[in-house]
Amino acid sequence: MQSPLPAPDFETFRQRLAQGLTAPDATASQAARDRQANLTKPPGSLGVLEDLAVFMAGWQGRARPRIARAQAVVFAGNHGVCARGVNPYPQAVTAQMVANFNSGGAAINQLCRVTGAALSVVPLDLDRPTGDFTAGPAMTETEVLAAMAQGAAAVDPQADIVLLGEMGIGNSTVAAALALALFGGRAEDWVGPGTGADATGVALKARVINEGMARHRPDPGDGLGLLRAFGGREQAAICGAILAARRARVPVILDGFICTAAAAVLHPIAGALDHCIAGHCGSEPGHRRLLEALALRPVLSLDMRLGEGSGAAVALGVLRAALAVHDGMATFAEAGVSGGTSAGH
Amino acid sequence: MQSPLPAPDFETFRQRLAQGLTAPDATASQAARDRQANLTKPPGSLGVLEDLAVFMAGWQGRARPRIARAQAVVFAGNHGVCARGVNPYPQAVTAQMVANFNSGGAAINQLCRVTGAALSVVPLDLDRPTGDFTAGPAMTETEVLAAMAQGAAAVDPQADIVLLGEMGIGNSTVAAALALALFGGRAEDWVGPGTGADATGVALKARVINEGMARHRPDPGDGLGLLRAFGGREQAAICGAILAARRARVPVILDGFICTAAAAVLHPIAGALDHCIAGHCGSEPGHRRLLEALALRPVLSLDMRLGEGSGAAVALGVLRAALAVHDGMATFAEAGVSGGTSAGH
Repeated sequence: MQSPLPAPDFETFRQRLAQGLTAPDATASQAARDRQANLTKPPGSLGVLEDLAVFMAGWQGRARPRIARAQAVVFAGNHGVCARGVNPYPQAVTAQMVANFNSGGAAINQLCRVTGAALSVVPLDLDRPTGDFTAGPAMTETEVLAAMAQGAAAVDPQADIVLLGEMGIGNSTVAAALALALFGGRAEDWVGPGTGADATGVALKARVINEGMARHRPDPGDGLGLLRAFGGREQAAICGAILAARRARVPVILDGFICTAAAAVLHPIAGALDHCIAGHCGSEPGHRRLLEALALRPVLSLDMRLGEGSGAAVALGVLRAALAVHDGMATFAEAGVSGGTSAGH
Repeated sequence: MQSPLPAPDFETFRQRLAQGLTAPDATASQAARDRQANLTKPPGSLGVLEDLAVFMAGWQGRARPRIARAQAVVFAGNHGVCARGVNPYPQAVTAQMVANFNSGGAAINQLCRVTGAALSVVPLDLDRPTGDFTAGPAMTETEVLAAMAQGAAAVDPQADIVLLGEMGIGNSTVAAALALALFGGRAEDWVGPGTGADATGVALKARVINEGMARHRPDPGDGLGLLRAFGGREQAAICGAILAARRARVPVILDGFICTAAAAVLHPIAGALDHCIAGHCGSEPGHRRLLEALALRPVLSLDMRLGEGSGAAVALGVLRAALAVHDGMATFAEAGVSGGTSAGH
């Protein structure tokens, strides 16, 4: 499999990140737009479904894009910052949930089945949590690169769409730290209950994040530096997967707050997330703010806050609907219906 | 098929409307809620998906509801108010689109295929438009009852879910008139571009609706009177279908602004829409206002404004996802995952 990773060293990799980003096929996008204008419906009346079809056409390089092969990848990691008590669940739950994914009992398994995606589960050194970011960098440079490479390697370059998700007790704190480092504001703007913290827990998260900011004084333009400072492995893997998908021109559906905060690490690289759709906006308070900062419009808003790729998987159903109407509808001429773009309104 | 329709006469029917509304099964709802609390996820983390599963459990009377049989019904009608120039398309398009539905070329055909619904298309006297409501009542009492009976007869009482949609050139004006009559405000609050009116066209719609209000001085508590005054047949049929579905305890997904305005005619009857889900909030400006007036939260918000049941059909995919997680996920005990409602957070 072609992969942008690993690179010789951290600095070389950092410099190469912005190079060779693939672009969508403008001819296919335009052909899809033209087709939409001739289908038997008032122009624009399918709203976001039309936009999704055109988006997919561009990245797949086909006027009539398809999803024959959908892949969902869930990365799992453990986090040293859990030592600070930021999550009510024990870290053992990360591995327990990976076992649940592998035995088919989790939400993402059912959602992949109902929306037709193949699930890949990638646990990342669960028995070796990252460092506590209030005490030092969460990861070494080598660890960042290794996790990114694992993320890149997990992507099926033959997929028509890739859904990204994550699992990791404590990683809503990591996500909030990344978002704060990237987009500023106050820690309180980015923290929320996550999997179940109460008001005291949320306040603790903010305090812990502020300690991390004071220690690392992060450069918001340096995504790799942010991953090194705050982690974790699943965040780095998501970045690697996004870059690998981009190289293969495979469009990506991002999941919730944590997945999107990981993707945001690539935001300083102009256009790096252009092949990504925001699957949903969840109930974690920072999520909407983050999507606005990234100028991503979520497909769904269903108050979900589970992660695992669950919101991305539900959004896949909407994407399939968008491609079905785009591909299967009759044109005005085919159906003998009065109207179309040339109708004299 | 059991049906609440037809009744002996308009007045008797009006009096019987509120009688015998079925109720959801509280035991099944509670069993579904209990199950959700034990699935391997933080409580509430699937948001609306959890609510949808509990809703379906109540109406189906099963702790683990299912959708083996989904029916989409599209009612089509023509409207005398088109004589006033409220729509840029010729009324012939209504029959042309019915032909398109029947030959499989419309958006709703593709959406039913991709989300697994059987489509019923019910044209209602297309060659006999209703009366122009600015000149007199759109329908006679007999016509209202006949259209409601046709709507009721179209519902498959064995369906696990029914999706309702409509097609009818000019019917966004009818919908806005019904909404204004029911919920007040100004005509401008309820009119929008519909299938393609420009600013002048939208202003014309408002003027025409105000003329209709002045003529009929409608009683907002009298839904049948509103149908008679403003029509059309597809609106009456939607009301009949909703009542028939309720009698059979079949939950309903409403489509867009026009379908929802038709359903709103039943709103004065307390609880009459309790078995209905709002499939989406579209881009027609009155739609959000209408959903708020009905206290319905839309499943989707995708800027759709096509009608035909298209938004309801996309929402069916979300509903299927909700039932798949509800039915297929492992409980904490089954999966050996720490946590659940008894976890000591």
